[in-house]
Amino acid sequence: MADVWLESLQTVDAQAGYELAIKLSRMAIKYTQPSDEIRARLRPVYGESADSLIASSQVIATHFQTVAAANNYWQHGRV
Amino acid sequence: MADVWLESLQTVDAQAGYELAIKLSRMAIKYTQPSDEIRARLRPVYGESADSLIASSQVIATHFQTVAAANNYWQHGRV
Amino acid sequence: MADVWLESLQTVDAQAGYELAIKLSRMAIKYTQPSDEIRARLRPVYGESADSLIASSQVIATHFQTVAAANNYWQHGRV
Amino acid sequence: MADVWLESLQTVDAQAGYELAIKLSRMAIKYTQPSDEIRARLRPVYGESADSLIASSQVIATHFQTVAAANNYWQHGRV
Amino acid sequence: MADVWLESLQTVDAQAGYELAIKLSRMAIKYTQPSDEIRARLRPVYGESADSLIASSQVIATHFQTVAAANNYWQHGRV
Amino acid sequence: MADVWLESLQTVDAQAGYELAIKLSRMAIKYTQPSDEIRARLRPVYGESADSLIASSQVIATHFQTVAAANNYWQHGRV
Repeated sequence: MADVWLESLQTVDAQAGYELAIKLSRMAIKYTQPSDEIRARLRPVYGESADSLIASSQVIATHFQTVAAANNYWQHGRV
Repeated sequence: MADVWLESLQTVDAQAGYELAIKLSRMAIKYTQPSDEIRARLRPVYGESADSLIASSQVIATHFQTVAAANNYWQHGRV
Repeated sequence: MADVWLESLQTVDAQAGYELAIKLSRMAIKYTQPSDEIRARLRPVYGESADSLIASSQVIATHFQTVAAANNYWQHGRV
Repeated sequence: MADVWLESLQTVDAQAGYELAIKLSRMAIKYTQPSDEIRARLRPVYGESADSLIASSQVIATHFQTVAAANNYWQHGRV
Repeated sequence: MADVWLESLQTVDAQAGYELAIKLSRMAIKYTQPSDEIRARLRPVYGESADSLIASSQVIATHFQTVAAANNYWQHGRV
Repeated sequence: MADVWLESLQTVDAQAGYELAIKLSRMAIKYTQPSDEIRARLRPVYGESADSLIASSQVIATHFQTVAAANNYWQHGRV
């Protein structure tokens, strides 16, 4: 992919890190299925399937582990 | 998402950390399917499916790993 | 949840840690489906399904990673 | 479970650690479905299903991560 | 496999690391199903299935954890 | 299993580590289903199923995390 879409894993805070995890999760779909048209067609399918939504949530959780570690868990106040 | 819903991964104790893991798991669904109406419709579907509940439990377990690490496993008494 | 059910991730030994992982895995189901009646109805469904049992085992394995790390792998004799 | 079945995560070598991971994976099934009779009935079901075998392999891989870390990856010759 | 396809886990930046994670994910399919013809036949199947795309995304997320850790999370600016 | 099939997690380089991850993934199938005949029968089933191939790839990714960490991510040139 020619475009730069990922500059860094560092984020200002945990919520921004969570949102980066969502982006990381979505980009994999885009790399695997580059057609905008097909992805648009699939969106309502998984958006209305409880199991697909849970599976998406699992991918986000995995990326959030990575992003959180990269940010040292946004260590302010860390015990 | 304009709202601030995640201030920190630090929690007072392990149970609060577990409850944060549940929240992290649910927010992914909300980001992916923003419609309150559709999410409300899906809730009884996965709430009465053993496999969906187990899959949800897997997502929570993954987030709990992250939260526990962020809190240094609530190290009081750590060996 | 008002009740305190998780005091600490520290356990006396690895087997107690494994049993805590099972508890952590089950509590997610309870938070997601609070109805005792529905959970009781689902139990024989997943208890007699090989795939549900394997999926449950996966959740337990994930929690056991967390508990084992929290206990420094019950380091007695660690090389 | 009254019986002691897990003394330690330490093993003499990597292969013994792998075999412990298999045991950890199987014990979760036993805790969740204590009936020997039902488990015996399920065994041929998942033993002849490619997807069930792959899912079992995933559980073992997760436990093997834990056991390998507990043994400091059997550090002999570690770079 | 006689060919050298993986020289190192080090990459110049996070995006290159993400793309390596995609490669690592695809190579597993190639090792397991070496036939170019069969893989070509399967591609449209999973490329148009929301659940297969999410599952692929999960594999990429797991490899990205590994690559990110190997690169110390591309630590420039790490807090 | 009487045979020694796993001497060490250390490998000469990342690609050899990836190939060890594949072996670790396959051995779990062999331990769970020891019959050569049944495994041979299942091979074309999962080899031509996109979802089974992706699931196999997930298992390999998990083992590759373990092997890569055991080798300190083949640290040559590590930043």
